[in-house]
Amino acid sequence: MSDLLDVVRGLSKKTDSKIVLVVLDGVGGLPLELNGETELATARTPNLDALAAESQLGLVELVGAGITPGSGPGHLSLFGYDPLKYVVGRGALSAVGIGVKLNAGDVAVRGNFATLGADRIVDDRRAGRPTDEKNVEIVAKLRAAIPSIDGIPVEIYTESEHRFVVVFRAQNGEALGANIGDVDPQVTGVQPMTATAHDPASEKTAALVNAFVGQAEATLKDEPQVNGVLFRGYSDVPHFPSFADVYKLNAACIASYPMYKGLASLVGMDVLPVEGHEDALEGKIQALTENWARYDFFFLHIKKTDSTGEDGNFTEKAHKVELFDELLPAILALKPDVLGLVGDHSTPSKLLSHSWHPVPFLIHGGHGRFDPAQRFTETEALKGTLGLRRGTDVMPLLMANALKLNKYGA
Amino acid sequence: MSDLLDVVRGLSKKTDSKIVLVVLDGVGGLPLELNGETELATARTPNLDALAAESQLGLVELVGAGITPGSGPGHLSLFGYDPLKYVVGRGALSAVGIGVKLNAGDVAVRGNFATLGADRIVDDRRAGRPTDEKNVEIVAKLRAAIPSIDGIPVEIYTESEHRFVVVFRAQNGEALGANIGDVDPQVTGVQPMTATAHDPASEKTAALVNAFVGQAEATLKDEPQVNGVLFRGYSDVPHFPSFADVYKLNAACIASYPMYKGLASLVGMDVLPVEGHEDALEGKIQALTENWARYDFFFLHIKKTDSTGEDGNFTEKAHKVELFDELLPAILALKPDVLGLVGDHSTPSKLLSHSWHPVPFLIHGGHGRFDPAQRFTETEALKGTLGLRRGTDVMPLLMANALKLNKYGA
Repeated sequence: MSDLLDVVRGLSKKTDSKIVLVVLDGVGGLPLELNGETELATARTPNLDALAAESQLGLVELVGAGITPGSGPGHLSLFGYDPLKYVVGRGALSAVGIGVKLNAGDVAVRGNFATLGADRIVDDRRAGRPTDEKNVEIVAKLRAAIPSIDGIPVEIYTESEHRFVVVFRAQNGEALGANIGDVDPQVTGVQPMTATAHDPASEKTAALVNAFVGQAEATLKDEPQVNGVLFRGYSDVPHFPSFADVYKLNAACIASYPMYKGLASLVGMDVLPVEGHEDALEGKIQALTENWARYDFFFLHIKKTDSTGEDGNFTEKAHKVELFDELLPAILALKPDVLGLVGDHSTPSKLLSHSWHPVPFLIHGGHGRFDPAQRFTETEALKGTLGLRRGTDVMPLLMANALKLNKYGA
Repeated sequence: MSDLLDVVRGLSKKTDSKIVLVVLDGVGGLPLELNGETELATARTPNLDALAAESQLGLVELVGAGITPGSGPGHLSLFGYDPLKYVVGRGALSAVGIGVKLNAGDVAVRGNFATLGADRIVDDRRAGRPTDEKNVEIVAKLRAAIPSIDGIPVEIYTESEHRFVVVFRAQNGEALGANIGDVDPQVTGVQPMTATAHDPASEKTAALVNAFVGQAEATLKDEPQVNGVLFRGYSDVPHFPSFADVYKLNAACIASYPMYKGLASLVGMDVLPVEGHEDALEGKIQALTENWARYDFFFLHIKKTDSTGEDGNFTEKAHKVELFDELLPAILALKPDVLGLVGDHSTPSKLLSHSWHPVPFLIHGGHGRFDPAQRFTETEALKGTLGLRRGTDVMPLLMANALKLNKYGA
């Protein structure tokens, strides 16, 4: 059975209309007390309120009932890719999270630096938690020593402390498999394991991993503490039909954090440079404005609504919503044909973490009916004309409202 | 592509929190007159009303739009098993309905006692509708004569009147197939048919069935009326990943009627003894209280809300809801972390049968938002934050609210 993405791909058409999708990361919340108000409801948001009064509203569940989405699955769902079908593994997410662009067929692996004693016995699985600076120094040595193995380019990146990422780049369109056993024994006092392939397609990758381990140990043999590598979390990179292919959109990503830029690049968006530090709200508006003529779709990512929820700071999370509210007029001044506003998951301050609760979704512009929901809040959105839906419905609804989808069937 | 059950299995974790799921059988109703009130809305339920005011509400559709669920699919859906994927056949449901525990690989078959005349011609397909006592007498004779066939243990059970059930027990992990043609010719004046296998996996079972028919006729040859057996409705037993496996729950069933105990045992719940007759409400509360420390999940089944609907007795059905309302404080006194309240289907008195209408669903405890629904009724539930959902969403939502699910993806 074809999923909605396949249907949309067959119906989408290029038009002049422009869509902006703003993702307020983790924007959904919870009241601190029974029947109290959420962060969104507490925030003073005159611009959002005025927008909501003339918009279509609803709620979306990103992955499924009760399922708390990570940032990867949450965004893929918003981009229209069923997160149960398009799975981005840990290794790939680590790579994407530090801004590494991955291509279909590549394999990304999470690594730990370790301390090996006599006979290669693992003494410390985290090599004494080296500083990031030490990590960078070790990575530089490994890059110089292991540029490629057996014709396969090898890329090595610092993540943080003892964590690093290796990317094996597929050559000549021959996809590398990632179904491989761990090198990390998960305990100390034993040797690292030899990686074994669990299917024929992964045999070459297993050989690459084992060769890497040997060459790395040789390279680091004079290091007192950081002298071994352990691997687990191998990810192949699924083929994502691109935004250009599925939606006929020329799409740009405006985000500050590497993870979101990486996810956007996986689906073929151009990642625009953003000036400024951290959430860089003004830099994002500037990037949007300066590139307005060049694209017909913008994914604009706002991070701090999530971070403050993770910190358990209710007041500050509400304040981050208010900061976005101040930004809204500048976005509306560009007159997007359709503006979408949504979260990639909830991050209630009460839970100090992502949660499973549906997030509000708003469509401004396009063609809607009278919508009883008057604010962009969880409780008001419940009354909205868009109802409670899957996250994968967001893109088809934005496309439809922008009149970019042909009729299905005659 | 994985379904929600697979995803939940990968995310579930053992914690100290306790969940109680109360199933009010067939609790959904209909008004007797246009725009009137349902049984639930008519009932005086002060405890339920107070509970609903501080709970999350919604409605669930157990199988699909317009589909009236039997008790089997209704409960499987509530337990999280897609009833379109996990099909329990008529034979297995008959066995489960009389309290027989089935294991993966077994085959259960529905039988009719029949009257055969000269040349094995079927004179009466129901053997003159014998009494239950006569049925028990005949079954005893057959049990003595046919303990096993070809090394396969054979179990024979009285259902009622002319109906009985045979279970062929798989040995050595070799599953028996159930894709077999009928023995019952469905008309009189002809001989019973010889069962034929429709696939290689069912050939052994077909031989067992035919041998059973021959041995039964030999055993009953001196009976004047009950001297033949007819079979149709063969069921193999699907493998149900257990509650322990999927949810990491140590689950107990508290129910009075065999069907519900059987369904619970299919998914690996312990079936607790309940003192008392019929619905045994007090015995159920006693079982819950006495076993409170031993389990972290309780499925508590209330039957009479369904039976009274089937009888077409609107007033009595509303009264059964009131009886449950009186029970509620004793359940809440145990302080479950999460209490779920739902039906396995609707049974409107107006229709004197199960129906397709969604049933109200309530979650108390856990982590919800302000919920506009103020009573546990069909009309109020429509306003609730849980929306209209599939029955298979119930368990993931209870698990999430009990904080027993890890995040999906990073």
